[in-house]
Amino acid sequence: MGEAQVSLKHLFRVFTKPEHKDSKLAQIEQHLSDNILDFLSQHVVTKKTSLEEIEQDFSDAIVPESPEFVSTHAEALLEKLVAHSVNTYSPTFIGHMTSALPYFHLPLAKLLVGLNQNLVKIETSKAFTPLERQVLGMMHNLIYGEDDAFYHQYLHSARHALGAFCSGGTIANITALWVARNKTLGPTKGFSGVAKEGLAAAYRFYNISNLGVMCSKRGHYSLSKAVDALGIGRQQLLTIPCPDQTLDPQTALTEGKRYQEEGNKLLAIVGIGGTTETGHVDPLDELADVAKELGCWFHVDAAWGGATLFSNQYRDRLKGIHKADSVTIDAHKQMYVPMGAGMALFKNPEDANTVRHHAQYILREGSKDLGATTLEGSRNGMAMMVYASLHIFGRRGYELLIDQSIEKAKAFAQMIEKHPDFELITAPTLSLLTYRVCPASVQKKLQTANVKTRRSMNQKIDRLVVNVQKLQREAGKSFVSRTRLESPDYPDRSVTVFRVVLANPLTTQNDLTAILAEQHQIATGTKTWQDLEEGKYSLSH
Amino acid sequence: MGEAQVSLKHLFRVFTKPEHKDSKLAQIEQHLSDNILDFLSQHVVTKKTSLEEIEQDFSDAIVPESPEFVSTHAEALLEKLVAHSVNTYSPTFIGHMTSALPYFHLPLAKLLVGLNQNLVKIETSKAFTPLERQVLGMMHNLIYGEDDAFYHQYLHSARHALGAFCSGGTIANITALWVARNKTLGPTKGFSGVAKEGLAAAYRFYNISNLGVMCSKRGHYSLSKAVDALGIGRQQLLTIPCPDQTLDPQTALTEGKRYQEEGNKLLAIVGIGGTTETGHVDPLDELADVAKELGCWFHVDAAWGGATLFSNQYRDRLKGIHKADSVTIDAHKQMYVPMGAGMALFKNPEDANTVRHHAQYILREGSKDLGATTLEGSRNGMAMMVYASLHIFGRRGYELLIDQSIEKAKAFAQMIEKHPDFELITAPTLSLLTYRVCPASVQKKLQTANVKTRRSMNQKIDRLVVNVQKLQREAGKSFVSRTRLESPDYPDRSVTVFRVVLANPLTTQNDLTAILAEQHQIATGTKTWQDLEEGKYSLSH
Repeated sequence: MGEAQVSLKHLFRVFTKPEHKDSKLAQIEQHLSDNILDFLSQHVVTKKTSLEEIEQDFSDAIVPESPEFVSTHAEALLEKLVAHSVNTYSPTFIGHMTSALPYFHLPLAKLLVGLNQNLVKIETSKAFTPLERQVLGMMHNLIYGEDDAFYHQYLHSARHALGAFCSGGTIANITALWVARNKTLGPTKGFSGVAKEGLAAAYRFYNISNLGVMCSKRGHYSLSKAVDALGIGRQQLLTIPCPDQTLDPQTALTEGKRYQEEGNKLLAIVGIGGTTETGHVDPLDELADVAKELGCWFHVDAAWGGATLFSNQYRDRLKGIHKADSVTIDAHKQMYVPMGAGMALFKNPEDANTVRHHAQYILREGSKDLGATTLEGSRNGMAMMVYASLHIFGRRGYELLIDQSIEKAKAFAQMIEKHPDFELITAPTLSLLTYRVCPASVQKKLQTANVKTRRSMNQKIDRLVVNVQKLQREAGKSFVSRTRLESPDYPDRSVTVFRVVLANPLTTQNDLTAILAEQHQIATGTKTWQDLEEGKYSLSH
Repeated sequence: MGEAQVSLKHLFRVFTKPEHKDSKLAQIEQHLSDNILDFLSQHVVTKKTSLEEIEQDFSDAIVPESPEFVSTHAEALLEKLVAHSVNTYSPTFIGHMTSALPYFHLPLAKLLVGLNQNLVKIETSKAFTPLERQVLGMMHNLIYGEDDAFYHQYLHSARHALGAFCSGGTIANITALWVARNKTLGPTKGFSGVAKEGLAAAYRFYNISNLGVMCSKRGHYSLSKAVDALGIGRQQLLTIPCPDQTLDPQTALTEGKRYQEEGNKLLAIVGIGGTTETGHVDPLDELADVAKELGCWFHVDAAWGGATLFSNQYRDRLKGIHKADSVTIDAHKQMYVPMGAGMALFKNPEDANTVRHHAQYILREGSKDLGATTLEGSRNGMAMMVYASLHIFGRRGYELLIDQSIEKAKAFAQMIEKHPDFELITAPTLSLLTYRVCPASVQKKLQTANVKTRRSMNQKIDRLVVNVQKLQREAGKSFVSRTRLESPDYPDRSVTVFRVVLANPLTTQNDLTAILAEQHQIATGTKTWQDLEEGKYSLSH
């Protein structure tokens, strides 16, 4: 079935002739171009399919022997892959950070692949190199706002870098901490630096027991990957409890001092510019001062919240971000760029030199090859998508998008607070919020219950939330995610909550009303709801 | 000019309405779809433009304040960006590893962005997760060829990973060495492992002075990034001279023993499956035995050459690759997938657990979330491009492509050898070769010259090669890269050579004849050529 000819002639056709306009792949393309919402709602199935069933379609570990016609394969992609994908355009899928994208990215994606530049070095990217540098410069400017002379000097300097473009926030965070590590344990009289001599030698030379990285408990899992990969060790990721969802500067100072007095060196404090779980922003301004007092690097992980800087009304939520030594921003989050566009920005254009690499046939000394100061090597030209978005939206366009997201989140929070059977757990700082469902009567009892009863009640409510989230997802109409959180009201033990991210501009207030109504309907139909109302808190019920 | 309305209504249009069929962006798209070669030759300018001139177009570091119409911006992209890109489809651009791509990737790129899945976790990727696991399984099978029961057990196991998909070979190499490091310095009685306790503690516990990674001098620059980032230190990258372009197993053994006797621990030997500079393959089979004898990890960097395994005729060139603990392959090289598709494969499905990470709201324990064992976090669904290519080409299709590349390289090598004024420096093992231009009379004199004269002569020839490469590039018709190499004929000092990669299926023998003729014409027109013929070897001439 669908076996194509094994001949060079056929293969050359694949390289030189597009598919016929009536072919399956051309049809898919046309449908995507004409109406992507319609394409997705027609092809993504909403009925529950178990992962095991989907895995059946991807269970053969043998490279197919013979070629397949493109159209035969396109049919298979629709049935096996598209059918069981997540509809990220859907206005009622508000559980994740991916959302509908502007239309122009579809043709641009084609242009990107058609050009297929490799940004590791000038020779294989040409104009893409200055373009990427400009994008980094614009983002640097958005954060640090240096003057014209500064950007004139550094934007295209072969010996400097304002940042590193990369596949995502995880690599950006690792890059930032790599730079911090190499600078902190850098070359000096008698030591040629950690980059050359390695970490063990650096600890010996600098006479330190351990390097540490401090963040709140809401710090992204990429920080844990970073301290592992960089050789620092995950035990040295000092995660500070944060019942209020943010890192308290006084605690940071105290803990940092204590840590350093024990013979360790605090490498960095990481402030979060929009936590993945609740969207809270750490007090960046104060944390920058703490980092200064402790003599350590200050990194801000604003992968999610960085785009808030486009909004004149809300940019103050990131107050102090310009004091950071490095900042992570993901353009594939609130800048509505397709997946794969992370950035680490450096306040000091010299800092990236601490990780600079050269090679004979590539990244030659004095060249402007981007690969000399990035963790990745060969990379595609995703920066073009960011460049295009910055121009097509402009600051004011992004401002509107950011403002309406935050306002939608506020409106949704109000809806939840008004509803007797829902409880808002964390109010939105940015466009994220968390809440849970629970009979009004139980909410009331919780306020006066003793610690032990409260714990039982909360465990039972946790179960309700897990069930509702699962059943709602399986019903296929909407998707809300869940997580576990400590909160000021429940500091003794974390509780399970619904988590929503109101990033999709297509989501309306009506959608939100419907999602809440669906959750209520699902919840009240469960045995757990009944138990809660009847005061049966034991999980054995 | 081209300023669009700043209103939510306008922004919503950007998200919900495609550009009109007559718009500039739609025209670009149509042209790409109809005839990409024509699109590129029409829009990519061939006349020399200095980097400084291009930078002028990307010199503003301020985020544009107001939105721009998509079509206005599309016009700008054509003029500023596309015009000054590298035409990777051109059959006469044979200096790099990027090449023409099959047509189906253009519509698939659009589908990829339209779906915009995030492969960090199942919830945001669904069918893409099993698909990516299947792709890794197929590539694992291609290398290791385990039996059905093996793949049945591990392909979709939540507690195992056959590999890690990533943005490119650099991250793949880093991932492989990260896994090697964490396994070698893993948890044991009295020590909870390097991942948790860090590198300095691990060196103390295991009583080693240094960890080392060994490769030949042709080892990719990513290995240097890897040992830096992983805290091992660049001085511990033991690069062994290789006048024959490959790592000699006996030298590897001797050097490895010497290193370990000095109180160090050899972490890994890296064998190269197709060097970036000459396409040579290390003696993998023997190096695997050396690694075994030294008790260290064996990694094979087959970013370039891995696809040779599809060819029954040539797969023996990678003999012994199945003995590797880990292997890097880039699908965006000889698998003709767009930039951004690297893979690290692990022989032992348990090994990836040495870098496994969990988090509360994501990568939950027992989940099949891919992000738990990759260096990257959020990632796009590039695996779909590899999946589609594996099906549309099939093993036999790839075999034809690989075979014709190698045969074309052999034919080109013969052309060079026949031409009196060219000298083949390295013959093709895979589809790469290096050579230089030099008057026949000078070649003859070189054979009998004393060391000092030979050095002067070679320096002068170096200058000729550099000039010719530069002038040919600037002429814009073709592109050949250059590098510096030691070779058996010139072991005392490296020489500058042209480097060609014959990966583009569209490149014909006529193209190669023309490239050589152009180089000859350029060379004979230079003052350096004249000097060489007249015996003036001094560089001051």
